[in-house]
Amino acid sequence: MARTEATAPTVAVRLDYVDRPDAIADISTHVAGAGGTVRTLSTVRRWTEPDGAHLVEVELEVEGLAEDKVTGILDQLPGLRACRLTAALDKVFGKRLIVIGGGAQIAQAVLGAVSEADRHNLRGEKISVDTIPLVGEQNLAQAVRAVADLDRARALLLAGSIMGGEITKAVKELQSAGIPVICLNMVGTVPEVADLVVTDPVQAGTMAVMGIADTAKFDLARQKGRRY
Amino acid sequence: MARTEATAPTVAVRLDYVDRPDAIADISTHVAGAGGTVRTLSTVRRWTEPDGAHLVEVELEVEGLAEDKVTGILDQLPGLRACRLTAALDKVFGKRLIVIGGGAQIAQAVLGAVSEADRHNLRGEKISVDTIPLVGEQNLAQAVRAVADLDRARALLLAGSIMGGEITKAVKELQSAGIPVICLNMVGTVPEVADLVVTDPVQAGTMAVMGIADTAKFDLARQKGRRY
Repeated sequence: MARTEATAPTVAVRLDYVDRPDAIADISTHVAGAGGTVRTLSTVRRWTEPDGAHLVEVELEVEGLAEDKVTGILDQLPGLRACRLTAALDKVFGKRLIVIGGGAQIAQAVLGAVSEADRHNLRGEKISVDTIPLVGEQNLAQAVRAVADLDRARALLLAGSIMGGEITKAVKELQSAGIPVICLNMVGTVPEVADLVVTDPVQAGTMAVMGIADTAKFDLARQKGRRY
Repeated sequence: MARTEATAPTVAVRLDYVDRPDAIADISTHVAGAGGTVRTLSTVRRWTEPDGAHLVEVELEVEGLAEDKVTGILDQLPGLRACRLTAALDKVFGKRLIVIGGGAQIAQAVLGAVSEADRHNLRGEKISVDTIPLVGEQNLAQAVRAVADLDRARALLLAGSIMGGEITKAVKELQSAGIPVICLNMVGTVPEVADLVVTDPVQAGTMAVMGIADTAKFDLARQKGRRY
């Protein structure tokens, strides 16, 4: 159940429109009527115009329709102020390695991951390294669980010195959602359940990126339970 | 037009349902009917069940309705297989600093940004550092423009040695969308238009995070055109 199933290309548009509860319902009904499917919606900005109108800017990705069809549908919506094509986020930012942890470890792990992603991206990959430094069992467990809600997330790297309890439960849930977990060698039960344990944080970042890169000959599934 | 306008809290749910073009239209129509607004939708996973049904997993964030109201509406949808509450992404991953660039510079800039975000997050902030290493004028310009499509993006740090031309145009567009741009001191015209120019990459990462942290006494707007 890894997240590698091929997905159809999407058309991405950026829309400005008058912010009403039924605006998204209108948009998705029209898109569905033409045979398309809304796959992504992000509310990126809200503001009030000099005329008092509350506007919202949204990034929308639609599967199954051509560009002119999507813009043609959207241009007819009531309340629309602007509609322009943009690049689908997976084409620009690609796959995501998520890094969570704290202190000196996370900074070194990210250094390794970004250096390795740079090398793969030079050869045509698109790999992002998205990081949040956090401490505390509840904070960390919540963040690990939320990785399942991130589109384009392909692996999680946990970089800290002690992680267990609720975090370990969250790691197992994430793995069952198809996302492998790499961690540093550390105190606690997380290394017992991780897909790969690496002692050096720079190497951990490097290996985590290798694990999601199509340009690397490295299969995380064959590393299950190994420690380096 | 900075992206700091207060937004209402959202209820976040994770849904599994049978993948049809009109499923999102159904969901958003029901949500709007109850007075809520769909703010975020991410398609995180797709798979085929043993019974042959094509399922999709989606993370959805709704504004203006209580948790039980949202789950009550969604539970009645045809084709729904699972619906569970999750944490809204802005509560878990918070504000985002986006870092784009290449080579040794980007790795050092991210090291500084993540170390600084760690210090602010210990004091109650939630700041993520999201990075993509890229080279080439067109690639970089496209990524800079796409930052405007990322929800929760608060600032962009450009870490490279030469950036100008189309990238400089993209920087101006991004600034007009309310996102400040910090860059390294480098060859090209990007430093001429950036909101802040910093020579040392570790300090550039640090200052970029200070610029979006409420826990820092540092106002990017007062640095316009300064070089360090």
